Amino acid sequence: MTIAEISVVPIGTATPSVSQYVARAIAALGQQKDIKYTLTGMGTILEGDLAAVLEAVRKMHESVFGDRVQRVVTTVRIDERRDRESSAADKMQSVMEKLA
Amino acid sequence: MTIAEISVVPIGTATPSVSQYVARAIAALGQQKDIKYTLTGMGTILEGDLAAVLEAVRKMHESVFGDRVQRVVTTVRIDERRDRESSAADKMQSVMEKLA
Amino acid sequence: MTIAEISVVPIGTATPSVSQYVARAIAALGQQKDIKYTLTGMGTILEGDLAAVLEAVRKMHESVFGDRVQRVVTTVRIDERRDRESSAADKMQSVMEKLA
Amino acid sequence: MTIAEISVVPIGTATPSVSQYVARAIAALGQQKDIKYTLTGMGTILEGDLAAVLEAVRKMHESVFGDRVQRVVTTVRIDERRDRESSAADKMQSVMEKLA
Repeated sequence: MTIAEISVVPIGTATPSVSQYVARAIAALGQQKDIKYTLTGMGTILEGDLAAVLEAVRKMHESVFGDRVQRVVTTVRIDERRDRESSAADKMQSVMEKLA
Repeated sequence: MTIAEISVVPIGTATPSVSQYVARAIAALGQQKDIKYTLTGMGTILEGDLAAVLEAVRKMHESVFGDRVQRVVTTVRIDERRDRESSAADKMQSVMEKLA
Repeated sequence: MTIAEISVVPIGTATPSVSQYVARAIAALGQQKDIKYTLTGMGTILEGDLAAVLEAVRKMHESVFGDRVQRVVTTVRIDERRDRESSAADKMQSVMEKLA
Repeated sequence: MTIAEISVVPIGTATPSVSQYVARAIAALGQQKDIKYTLTGMGTILEGDLAAVLEAVRKMHESVFGDRVQRVVTTVRIDERRDRESSAADKMQSVMEKLA
């Protein structure tokens, strides 16, 4: 299982509001059955196998381009662990237990 | 208001489990009143003014070092908007509305 | 043309030195003709089309796993511009001219 | 010694060209004696102690704001090693030797 986080940023949009582009990127995931996604205040968390994650990254990045958007900066952080299964929820749980 | 996301990664830990170091970094924030933080599956979201965010980054990064951890890689993404107030929750709400 | 930067970090390596894993990731690019790469002090810059960049990311990330490495954190930043061709060297040149 | 990489991105600039803002951010470093910086095709590498790096991050990030830029997204990756001195040039050298 691979957990990743992606943030897409359109450059040259005339206004500082970019939520419509983030929505478009998430909508681009709609048909992809092999990815689970979760919105955060700073990006979108993706869970799936590595190939599915990279395919989601490609689709989200490409979805942001359009007539008025000719440049996109996408940041991705991929965390893959092969010794055992661990979801994003498991990771948070594990930190919480140590904090308690 | 500045919204940021931070991820701390200790290098050379002998095991792939790093949740204890993440917990330590979050505990390091405990006394800082000018920061609001939220745990995600890929990091910690920080909300406050820029100086408070950078002070939190410094403390979280430094907290990971110890006898057995001599190298730390910290990734930070800072999103600051000055035309209007916008929290992490507002940003998510705004994307959700466009998706609906 | 897409310009990207990738950094691969093995977790659980027992020592803070990770250059052998970075070397392995770069070696994994060796056969890929559609990517130009440049080493920096903080990662590797990749230039090619988006599909080639994502294929390079996949290979570099996977190359770091091994008997003693069961977790890998890979960070990628992708900067794609479609209004005109611009290489990493062009981007640096453009900044230098503004500084002069 | 801390090695970091920073990338500043203005949001809402009307055009995809942002080199003038990158130049402004680098110019903001001009007076800071305790930082060494190097431009790459994807950002700026900073070398100094942690406090100096964070001060440079603050100045670079703030320098991008202006009448026409009301939102800035800054990405920073910090790599600090305390077991021995290692510059960005040393890190590259070490990878090169393994590749040879």
